[in-house]
This record gives sequence, structure tokens and C-alpha cells, in this order.
Amino acid sequence: MSELKQMDSSSLQHLHNKVKEELETIKKSNLSLNMSRGKPSAEQLKLSLGLLNSVNAENIGDNFSVLNYGLVDGIPEAKTLFKDILGVDTEEILIGGNASLNIMHDIISKALIKGVIDSETPWGKEDKIKFICPVPGYDRHFTICEAYDIEMISVDMLENGPDMDKVEELVRNDTSIKGIWCVPKYSNPDGITYSDDVVERLAKMETQAKDFKIFWDNAYAIHDLTENPPVLKNILEACKKHGNPNRVFMFASTSKVTFPGSGVAVVAASKENIQFIKTQLSVQTIGPDKVNQLRHVRFFKNYDNILEHMKKHAEIMKPKFDAVLNILHSKLGAYGIATWTEPQGGYFISLNTMDGCASEVISLAAEAGVTLTGAGAAFPYGKDPRDRNIRIAPSFPTLAEVEKAIEVLCLCIILVSTNKLL
Amino acid sequence: MSELKQMDSSSLQHLHNKVKEELETIKKSNLSLNMSRGKPSAEQLKLSLGLLNSVNAENIGDNFSVLNYGLVDGIPEAKTLFKDILGVDTEEILIGGNASLNIMHDIISKALIKGVIDSETPWGKEDKIKFICPVPGYDRHFTICEAYDIEMISVDMLENGPDMDKVEELVRNDTSIKGIWCVPKYSNPDGITYSDDVVERLAKMETQAKDFKIFWDNAYAIHDLTENPPVLKNILEACKKHGNPNRVFMFASTSKVTFPGSGVAVVAASKENIQFIKTQLSVQTIGPDKVNQLRHVRFFKNYDNILEHMKKHAEIMKPKFDAVLNILHSKLGAYGIATWTEPQGGYFISLNTMDGCASEVISLAAEAGVTLTGAGAAFPYGKDPRDRNIRIAPSFPTLAEVEKAIEVLCLCIILVSTNKLL
Repeated sequence: MSELKQMDSSSLQHLHNKVKEELETIKKSNLSLNMSRGKPSAEQLKLSLGLLNSVNAENIGDNFSVLNYGLVDGIPEAKTLFKDILGVDTEEILIGGNASLNIMHDIISKALIKGVIDSETPWGKEDKIKFICPVPGYDRHFTICEAYDIEMISVDMLENGPDMDKVEELVRNDTSIKGIWCVPKYSNPDGITYSDDVVERLAKMETQAKDFKIFWDNAYAIHDLTENPPVLKNILEACKKHGNPNRVFMFASTSKVTFPGSGVAVVAASKENIQFIKTQLSVQTIGPDKVNQLRHVRFFKNYDNILEHMKKHAEIMKPKFDAVLNILHSKLGAYGIATWTEPQGGYFISLNTMDGCASEVISLAAEAGVTLTGAGAAFPYGKDPRDRNIRIAPSFPTLAEVEKAIEVLCLCIILVSTNKLL
Repeated sequence: MSELKQMDSSSLQHLHNKVKEELETIKKSNLSLNMSRGKPSAEQLKLSLGLLNSVNAENIGDNFSVLNYGLVDGIPEAKTLFKDILGVDTEEILIGGNASLNIMHDIISKALIKGVIDSETPWGKEDKIKFICPVPGYDRHFTICEAYDIEMISVDMLENGPDMDKVEELVRNDTSIKGIWCVPKYSNPDGITYSDDVVERLAKMETQAKDFKIFWDNAYAIHDLTENPPVLKNILEACKKHGNPNRVFMFASTSKVTFPGSGVAVVAASKENIQFIKTQLSVQTIGPDKVNQLRHVRFFKNYDNILEHMKKHAEIMKPKFDAVLNILHSKLGAYGIATWTEPQGGYFISLNTMDGCASEVISLAAEAGVTLTGAGAAFPYGKDPRDRNIRIAPSFPTLAEVEKAIEVLCLCIILVSTNKLL
């Protein structure tokens, strides 16, 4: 096995034909595997079934206030339970409904209509506003921007987080840049955890817009796969230290801890900022589903139990990640036609093909019965400028399915690459 | 007992002194009664405790899809269950989270940013937009408008709904009027159900704004207290008939059927409009809490059971309404200083004092330990132009507390009225 670029054309052709034949055989087997989204598997969902029983007619006691209206910022017990995920005080957190994406969306929609805490003008009243989008990134963040005509500026993800030289330069000079999307731990899809230096620079950088905001989507805060996981620096603390306490909104949820459809989402920020959000929220709702918050409080009891629970997730996820990495290594290995990340947690492995191959690989895999995340999904406007990134989401299928799907993916990559080189 | 206005001043003074003394005694008794919000009582909440048990670890079966991401418009079984509350087809309904207020808010916030289905311009990009607010009305509707700088135009509620001559004239001539708030059955606070004629006129009226919308908050659709409740005409059908299928958004929820904090909210509209909302919603969330939807489906099974369940609510609510009405009648009776509605359902009784008395009555009651909805709350910007309306919300306190609170209220009304007349 040698680098494809160094193969002579007859060896390339031979490899091409062999792989093509293998794929034809697979196509006939009517595979149907879906690796497109970061959904927990049934096995993972089973870990939390006890949550469904933690509040019932018999044990509700005199907790009738959770059944009724009120407490727009969530029940105090839930604040106590979840604050440690983000490393904040109970006064710096607000407990919402079942989706952190919803809270992010709502903060942006209200920013457009009314502005954020330090806005002089609602964002929607400005001629143009822009967000920095580290790429590759999370498609649903970008969808919000696209839907609301917020121009997206791509900045490359480097080894330790977004290219901060570029970010600093952009925000220092452009008053229309109002925000940046960050998935700071086990970034989607690269699995990169921002270094302390990157966190510090984000917290202290000079921004032309006075109401610049960091959307810190810490979706994988506790989703470690290794014994000694990376530790993410607390950005709220850093922002306070640098005199920008209201710069960051931190988000987390139990979507990938308990149930994606029925979890609890949280937002954390400075006390002042949380008060501001709470006031805005009071216009919108009389309160979140507090019963589901109580379910989580009773099911977990304390933060240590949440971490123990996450180890069980890791036991299910780790073999799938390992399988992906092992197969990529053994099947693509020294061909030199793809690179990939080896995350220590989160939900994704990010693979780059040779330039100009990703969309063809993805459609070829679909023909062979393997659905991958759409080409370009991890980029603003769905356009990967180098057409090379493929997001691998191994959580939902079984281990055997993951193995099969990655074998197919490798064949597709070899086929498209040999074709390109011939 | 005769009309106060016809009493001579010494009789008035005598009554005034007597009532003042009674109130002083009550003040010393340290009452603490809250009739400020339309919250169900603990007794009502108990009716739905079985809901908490309807989905558990043992009976979830292979319903794992409800635990996971997806189904942004709700589970099909919930559509089937709830469609009859609003009299629509399954394709005309979308099942959301725990608060219909939240859905109303979101439709308006998106209308401001992006427009509604037939907008040429986002509402927020227009110089000014206005909503018609039948008064007295629901304070939380008005709060949304006030928060988002939507000018409110008050139109009086008449016996059969809003003053339609006025409404028709306004919408025909003012392109900036984009909507009207309606609580069409047992209106908050008057308890009025819109007549067929009012519904028809709303559906067919000519509007200058092409993207005019009716926000039909049918919060009390099935909250009847009498054997032969009024029947509200189906406004979606009427809108279709008159060629305005996309004019209306209908809302309902189980907030006052099961749990206010943990119910299920729905929005209904034309199929086309629901598709539009669904597309907008997909930007905001990956899906609502489907487990709670499944709980409701399993708890009720069918629409008839929901109606049976509502009879149990009526058994608890009716004596409180009767108590309020009986005490108002016996204590204020022929004094001619107040009028009130006698709703056949819903959550409120609306009382009008003589002009200029309501805020004083409400603060006097507060001093005596009875918290009522704030003066002016039922009017845009919190200002009752005649300072006469008091919303009575008898659901939350016990029957004995309701009786005591209304007795205090009557004393306060007599005191303030005699004072005014002396």
C-alpha cells in the first residue's frame, strides 16, 4: 500500500476496477445505513429510561407548583444540578425547555427585534449584520443565520480552535460583526477542544461592535470518550477578567445525556445578562416544562451522578469511534487521499478527502445504501469551498452497521480518488 | 338596599363608616388570598396526575423515536387527538411544546423578522405596524405587542364579541394594521363567546393589509361550566369560505386541561399556513417534547375522554363561579355601583365599578390581604381609560377563600364608591 499519487496508472486502474467491483456487489445487497446525524442510539436512550419514572402520581408529593404556571427561569434545584456542567453560579444560569438550539435562536431573534443587553440599535434595524462561522461547523447554527439574513464569514478551524489572528482582525475592524458561533469542546464536526489561549483571546479581543456576542454552544461539555479528557477553560470567567462579562452566552443541554426529544436545555451568562434574558423570556412564556426539570433533578440527584452516567454513554460510543478510526486507518492508511480527526469526545469524526471529491463520495455512498451528512453541510450556505469535508456520525447505527458503513465509505473514497488521479 | 346614587348623604356616610370598620377588622386578620391569575387549583391539577404515569420505562415499548430528535410538527397521534378541540384536519394542526403563548410569540417575532406567508415585507421593516386589541382583553397578548413596539388600537368588546363596525372600518382603511387578538370563547376577562355573525365578519372583512392575521387564542375552547354551552363558529372554515384561508392562526393548549407548566400547545391554520410555520420552526428547533405529547395521547386516548375530563374541572370551577356571582349579587345587588358578567365557562368574571374606582378598589383589597389582577391589566399599556375594570380569577383559591375574597372585594367597592359619591 503506497500513496496513490505515487502509483503508476496501471496500478491505479487495477485498484479502481477492483474497488468498483466491490461496490457493485454491495449495491446489490440493499444496504440501508444512516450516519447522517448525531443522534444517540437506542442503546444510549435506554440508559435514561428511569428518568420517565422519576416523577409520577405517587411521588409528586406536594410539588404542585411545578405542575402550574410560573418560574420562567426554571426550578432552583435544576439550576443547582446543571450549573457545574458550565461552571457557573446559580444566578448565572437559566433552565429552559427541551432544546438549547431553541434558546440560541430566540436570543438571536430578539436581538434582531430588540437588541442584546448592550445594543444601541436592534440588530435587525442595522443595514447589515454578520456572524463569524468557524468552519467546518454545525449546520443548524448556520441555518439560523441564513434564515435571518445574517451574513456568514467563514474562518478556518485550526488545531486549537478558530484561527484567532483572523477572528481578531475581523472583529476589530468591522462594526457589523455581531457574533461568533463556537462549539468549543469536541467541535462539530472536527472534535477539537479550544485551547486556553484561544478562549482567552476570544474573551479579551477588541471588538468594533459594542454588542458583539459569543454563542458558546457547549453541546459536548461532558461527552468525553477518554480517561483524561481535555479541559475547556471557563470563558465566562475569562470574559469577566477582561472586563467583558456580557460578551458570552453559554449553552448546554441533556439532549445527548438523557433524551434528545425530551431533555432540558440551559443557558448561562453573567448575572446581568441572565436577568436581561429572563425579562425578554417573560414576554414569550409563562414558564418552561418544570416537571421535566424535576424529572432530571430526581433522576441524577447530583453532578457526580451525571458524570457517572456519561461514562456509560462513553462505553457505547467509544467502540464505534474506534471502529471508524481503525477501518479508516486500515483501508485508506497510506494512500494519502484522506485525513481525519481523532476526537477524544463528542459525536463526530471529520474527514477530508482530496479537494473536489466529497460530494461525489457522498452521493456514491448513498447509491450503495449509506446515508452520510450532506456534502457542504458543515459550511455556511451549504458550500464547502474545497468540496472535501465529510462528517462521520457513528452514534446512531449499531457497531456492526458502523463498520459496514465505514468500509463502504472507504471504497467510495478510493473509487473517486483513483478516478480523479487517472 | 337602594341605588347609592339615590341615597342621601347621611345614609351614604353611615354605610361608608360601617364598611370602613368592617375592612379595618379584616385587615387585622392578616388575610392572604390571591385571585390575580387564572391558575388552576391543586384540586384541578390532581385530576391529571395519571398523566405522569402514562409513559414510563416499562411501557415505553419500542417507542424510542419519541425520545429522539425529530418530528418538528409533533407526533401524528397527538394531531389526531387534539384536532377536534379546534375542529380542523390533521394536516391543519401542529403540536408544539408546553405553551401556546410561546407559539403566538414566535409567529409574531418571525413575522417581524421575515414576514408571514403573504407578506411582501417583514413586519419589522415597515415604518409602523398595529394590532387591534378588543378590550378588556388578555394582558399577555398586549405585552408581546408592547415589547415589540406594535402599536395597539383598543376596540370595545360588545355583547357578542368585538365591535365589528369599528374593526371593519379600521382594517379597511389602515394598511399598517396587521393583526387582531381574539379570545373568542369565554373571552378573557369578560367570558363572552363571539357570535356566528362576528366570526363571519372577521373571516370576510376587507383588509387593507394583504398579510393581516387573526390570532385566535381559543384558550377556553372546551372549558364549559354549563350543560348547554355556547358553540363557537369555526373561523378557519369561515375564512376558507370567504377566500381568506391563510388569515387565521388558531391556538389551544392543555394548560388548563392537564398541567399549566407541563401541557401541550397546538396551533391550527390552513394546510399551506401550517407548512409555512413548520418550515420556519425547523430553523428554531429539531423538535418539541414528544414524550409529553405521547403522555397526553395515552392519558386521554380520544377526544370524548377529554370532554369527560373537562366536566370534572367544571365540577370544581362552577361552585366558585356561583359563589362569586351570588356574593356580588347579595352584597352589591341593587347599589348600582358595579356591573359584572356571568360567563358560562372560562376562567374569569369581569366586573366594572363606577368610572375612576377600579385602581383604588384593587389597592384597598391588597391592603386587606386580597391580591387581584392589577388595575388596567386587561388594557393595552396597562391603562384602563375609565379605570373601572376588575378581573376576578376564582380558580386558584379554595371555595372558602373565594367567598372571603369576594366579600372583601365588595366591601372595597362600597367604600370607594361611597367615598366618591359623598
